[in-house]
Amino acid sequence: MIVSRATYDPDVPTYRLTIEYDGSRYRGWQEQKNAHTVAGELRQAIEALAPGRVELAGSGRTDAGVHALAQVAHLRSQQTLDRSFIIELNARLPADIHVLQVDPAGERFHARHSAVARSYVYQISRRRTAFAKRFVWWVNQPLDISEMRAAAVRLVGKRDFAAFCERPEEQSSTLVVVESAEIAEAGSLILVRLVASHFLWKMVRRVVGTLVRVGTGEITRGQFELLLAAGDASLVGPDPARFTAPPSGLFLERVVYPGELGLAALAPPVPVPTEVAAAVD
Amino acid sequence: MIVSRATYDPDVPTYRLTIEYDGSRYRGWQEQKNAHTVAGELRQAIEALAPGRVELAGSGRTDAGVHALAQVAHLRSQQTLDRSFIIELNARLPADIHVLQVDPAGERFHARHSAVARSYVYQISRRRTAFAKRFVWWVNQPLDISEMRAAAVRLVGKRDFAAFCERPEEQSSTLVVVESAEIAEAGSLILVRLVASHFLWKMVRRVVGTLVRVGTGEITRGQFELLLAAGDASLVGPDPARFTAPPSGLFLERVVYPGELGLAALAPPVPVPTEVAAAVD
Repeated sequence: MIVSRATYDPDVPTYRLTIEYDGSRYRGWQEQKNAHTVAGELRQAIEALAPGRVELAGSGRTDAGVHALAQVAHLRSQQTLDRSFIIELNARLPADIHVLQVDPAGERFHARHSAVARSYVYQISRRRTAFAKRFVWWVNQPLDISEMRAAAVRLVGKRDFAAFCERPEEQSSTLVVVESAEIAEAGSLILVRLVASHFLWKMVRRVVGTLVRVGTGEITRGQFELLLAAGDASLVGPDPARFTAPPSGLFLERVVYPGELGLAALAPPVPVPTEVAAAVD
Repeated sequence: MIVSRATYDPDVPTYRLTIEYDGSRYRGWQEQKNAHTVAGELRQAIEALAPGRVELAGSGRTDAGVHALAQVAHLRSQQTLDRSFIIELNARLPADIHVLQVDPAGERFHARHSAVARSYVYQISRRRTAFAKRFVWWVNQPLDISEMRAAAVRLVGKRDFAAFCERPEEQSSTLVVVESAEIAEAGSLILVRLVASHFLWKMVRRVVGTLVRVGTGEITRGQFELLLAAGDASLVGPDPARFTAPPSGLFLERVVYPGELGLAALAPPVPVPTEVAAAVD
């Protein structure tokens, strides 16, 4: 479905769409035959409003159950899309997909190829709450945040993430330049934000899952560093997938294009009640 | 299911349970035959852990789709319920029901009869968001908050709520003493909190629905006051049910017992992302 640069037609206007979605009900962003996906829903709603050929492509895939605060897609359509279009489009979309903005873009704008960085936020909850299972990973064991921070710092720079992704053998390269790795606390939440030019398959979830094992003491900070240095997930046990954090806590926060400003302070993407209401007074 | 005062047995310990729930999937709090209810789920989990006769009763009903931050129930069981009980209980409960606390209570403690006040918070969102349909009422029209506040002030005191409840003819009395009626703004949210000793059926939802019509200008503040004075919902149109706000925005916030302190400042019960992430920088 990704449209190559070669297909652009200067007579067809290009738009940039900014979309938020609760990924819980979807098999991810990317359109698939016989599967319910976010881009599939979006295309269906757009085609009902803007007849004719529609080119639609996102900045990248998000997996089943993963959310987005601001996924970006480009849309090329013969139709001129004015302000009323976004209202009609949202009225047609399911409640868990919401188009935030539709802006005219340069004819060569490509949501994936033009992006220079992506940021993801992962939300861990240290308390069980009736309201937020779909937006957090509930971790019940005590976590040593300072150990997790000290490990996370080592992710920054050009690193080999072979030990922190699914099917590394299918990647042309497992080297990724990580711009920043932050951990913040907000009430009973722990937030992890990673910013990089690109991400490997399940990389954020594997990094977070492994950082949590550092936090619980299941693996040492030294073992974490060895994983980065040796690029072999089997060093910490026979089942590396066990170190993959669930999709529920993961949010694509931001896709950055050239000339755009930096990120806001790290805050809960979908705030969750972190205090017990009964205990407030 | 409500246990009368007469049934207590001084040899059976009494506990006070504090429970939060996302009511979206349930036919309300109250146990019913052949319906999925919060108290039904709770009883099933308790009975699996504490064999023998269990008396369980909540502070009051909540309707289908209505949530609770701190519903209170009393539980009488032959079992001694220690700290590990709450952990095992939560492990058995569905993810959208969470027992916050289990405290020993006096033998005459009755969740409904002992309560002296209840507070409800209603959450209105002025923006569509992919993440919170189940926790808000999305109101798209502009609202005049100061008109809504001026109308809400008139609710305080001993008033006849015949025009603000379902089936007033079935009530022994439609007089209710409202202690406070607050309206606060938090980002794109509007919060309405009502505190009273008791509430009539759908009273909060009818009050909020009518206040919103005042906010949109559909009815005047004078008409609102007439509804209170005359106690006849048909004064503002042939279909009073149209003025009932949906259950999704409603939270039972707090049940107050004698000697307990006041409420915390009004804040979003389940915070919702109110700002557009893409527009933060």
